[in-house]
Amino acid sequence: MLRSTEKSHVDQDPYFRWRGGAVTRIENLSDIVFALSLSLIAVASAPPTTFSELISVFRSGFAFAFGFVILLMIWNYHYLFFRRYGLSDQKIVFLNALLLFVVLMFVYPLRFLADFMFVLIPAFFTNFDTVAYMVGGIENGENLLIIYSFGYAVVFLIIAGLYGHAASKREALELDETEYLLTRRSRASALIQAGVAMFVAGVAGLTPIGPWAGPLY
Amino acid sequence: MLRSTEKSHVDQDPYFRWRGGAVTRIENLSDIVFALSLSLIAVASAPPTTFSELISVFRSGFAFAFGFVILLMIWNYHYLFFRRYGLSDQKIVFLNALLLFVVLMFVYPLRFLADFMFVLIPAFFTNFDTVAYMVGGIENGENLLIIYSFGYAVVFLIIAGLYGHAASKREALELDETEYLLTRRSRASALIQAGVAMFVAGVAGLTPIGPWAGPLY
Amino acid sequence: MLRSTEKSHVDQDPYFRWRGGAVTRIENLSDIVFALSLSLIAVASAPPTTFSELISVFRSGFAFAFGFVILLMIWNYHYLFFRRYGLSDQKIVFLNALLLFVVLMFVYPLRFLADFMFVLIPAFFTNFDTVAYMVGGIENGENLLIIYSFGYAVVFLIIAGLYGHAASKREALELDETEYLLTRRSRASALIQAGVAMFVAGVAGLTPIGPWAGPLY
Amino acid sequence: MLRSTEKSHVDQDPYFRWRGGAVTRIENLSDIVFALSLSLIAVASAPPTTFSELISVFRSGFAFAFGFVILLMIWNYHYLFFRRYGLSDQKIVFLNALLLFVVLMFVYPLRFLADFMFVLIPAFFTNFDTVAYMVGGIENGENLLIIYSFGYAVVFLIIAGLYGHAASKREALELDETEYLLTRRSRASALIQAGVAMFVAGVAGLTPIGPWAGPLY
Repeated sequence: MLRSTEKSHVDQDPYFRWRGGAVTRIENLSDIVFALSLSLIAVASAPPTTFSELISVFRSGFAFAFGFVILLMIWNYHYLFFRRYGLSDQKIVFLNALLLFVVLMFVYPLRFLADFMFVLIPAFFTNFDTVAYMVGGIENGENLLIIYSFGYAVVFLIIAGLYGHAASKREALELDETEYLLTRRSRASALIQAGVAMFVAGVAGLTPIGPWAGPLY
Repeated sequence: MLRSTEKSHVDQDPYFRWRGGAVTRIENLSDIVFALSLSLIAVASAPPTTFSELISVFRSGFAFAFGFVILLMIWNYHYLFFRRYGLSDQKIVFLNALLLFVVLMFVYPLRFLADFMFVLIPAFFTNFDTVAYMVGGIENGENLLIIYSFGYAVVFLIIAGLYGHAASKREALELDETEYLLTRRSRASALIQAGVAMFVAGVAGLTPIGPWAGPLY
Repeated sequence: MLRSTEKSHVDQDPYFRWRGGAVTRIENLSDIVFALSLSLIAVASAPPTTFSELISVFRSGFAFAFGFVILLMIWNYHYLFFRRYGLSDQKIVFLNALLLFVVLMFVYPLRFLADFMFVLIPAFFTNFDTVAYMVGGIENGENLLIIYSFGYAVVFLIIAGLYGHAASKREALELDETEYLLTRRSRASALIQAGVAMFVAGVAGLTPIGPWAGPLY
Repeated sequence: MLRSTEKSHVDQDPYFRWRGGAVTRIENLSDIVFALSLSLIAVASAPPTTFSELISVFRSGFAFAFGFVILLMIWNYHYLFFRRYGLSDQKIVFLNALLLFVVLMFVYPLRFLADFMFVLIPAFFTNFDTVAYMVGGIENGENLLIIYSFGYAVVFLIIAGLYGHAASKREALELDETEYLLTRRSRASALIQAGVAMFVAGVAGLTPIGPWAGPLY
């Protein structure tokens, strides 16, 4: 059932008729995977039994917030895509499975990255002992950057693939002029994000500036 | 689809037409996060392998019940809000994400608090050794109270924000007189709860009575 | 939307019109809690890393099957109740929360019980050493039986409460003669099950036959 | 509500009218179990705290991918079945419960198998020490093959049972000629898969070629 135009001002996507009706099983499965990932990032450590352990739970909250925002951003892309187009053909199922795979694959690394950043930043003002313990050398910092840039690029390539597929179904979905344009633009913007990530990975891997390519984001 | 008035006597909210139709993905994601939080509080420890471990599972049931009730109370606020207004715009998605973040952040601390309370209360009749082990000093008891009051206040500020947003959409949602009043009142009541929590935190942090400000609730 | 009579031969409840429409959030939250409980029973131990650990995963499969069947039986009662009546008022939310609490509370104990039974039965043919290690004495076997009988009784008292509430809403739900009868009978049957469980607990606790009251089931 | 024929070109099943309407609770429960299984395979190990542990998370990604693909393949069969026929009678609930049981039972073994394969393949080029550590002897390799073939056969027997039940409900579901044929063919194909798996298990168990029967797949 299409959203009536009167209702469209109460959600976040006023220029688009939503073709997705009731939540499909593909979306349901994905939601569960996203929610599980959020929880896995939140409770990476064992439950606290003393006050100082409790405090360290809250301290790691900053790292948790970092992963939480990234995962929820990906979820929001996913959410908008499926609400807008309501597609569920073979290719969508395949791309969606790929996305879930990458998300689950990067849950723990995302937590690691966040923990690492909150060790790295104060290290600039003191010393790099803990950083060295976690990473084990400057060339590993380089590899870290390449791995995460790669993951980031893959996520946005999948999103670009999803939007590209929706654009190719223009007639079946009865996209009007604005909607078609928005679809093409979403695809382009995802491709640009993937490109930037791969550029950063390339700079880090191939030039001597190595891990210092990070601030290019 | 709006609830027909004939059906409204079989649910818990007889004075309100429910604008939320089928469960949205925002609600679905939130439900999963809530259910996971409930489970994480329930099974904080390893599975029991002997009878005495089994008994300690049941004993910790009181602590579990405490966290269970608080989480389910927040879930019920969440449930009513989304069923009533069926809103899903940018601001709602953001506030909802913030709420989920706070819930996941406080899952283990909630369990800790509950365990702590069930150590604290018998301690008044015997001695404070275990309490001292868990907390490590009277000034930490103070900090505990401030932290939880702060979390409590944030949850109710978010709920107040949600209701405030619904009230500002009065016309789009076609709220009638009673519904608008109920919405305003829900917002006011959430603000009062947040205010009380911050007052307790202030008393605990700034006055000499410190952790003994707890019974002010 | 009520199920059309033409469709009712494709589900398990042919004599009842289903008042529950799309899955509600109360049901969604409950489904997640049930599924999590199933998983927690399934993967109580750490993942296997050698062949002999793998074999012990399959051996514990019998214990898993036991808990799985009991949980899924409770889920099926829950499922039929909410599909049939579609109720979601204050009392239902409260009773449902109580049920979820008991389910989460008994997840690990259920696994323990199942493991215990698969140690106990072979013990009759060999010796009771492992049993003694797990339980630590005949009087604890008695307590085990009382605890589980109590949990069993509470679950069926809640189910009886749910059906009793549905029966009291007879007119609002427009139950016809058959449906009202089925509702009353479901309530009676749940009460009988709760009664039997409490009788067993009483026999175990108050008479000298103690844990040997188990086969009364 | 039946899918309109105009919409059928946007999903993966163009020759079938979908009888399943909104996602049922049976599907919801199953989705959660599948998503949990995916996550359990993904995060079998503890979260990484150093760079080398992080790398081993990515290395185990190949093993994860293996289990992920198998589980998602089973999910897809499940998804198509329930969308196509929308059945939910006693026998379906029972077969579905059996399927969920087998899935949860095989989550950790699937992960073990995948880890094992990624140890086995390089072993052909170097030596079999790690393989020997994991398995402990050639006759265990044989047992491994029998166990997994058995699990595989059971899954496809259940799927065949589901399709057989749908075919027997031909009139109630108003299957047309093509749909009835597709249903029969799905059943036959599942039976063949189950048969192949049992043949491999038989060859492995009864003939001297033992574990070398694996490549028969």
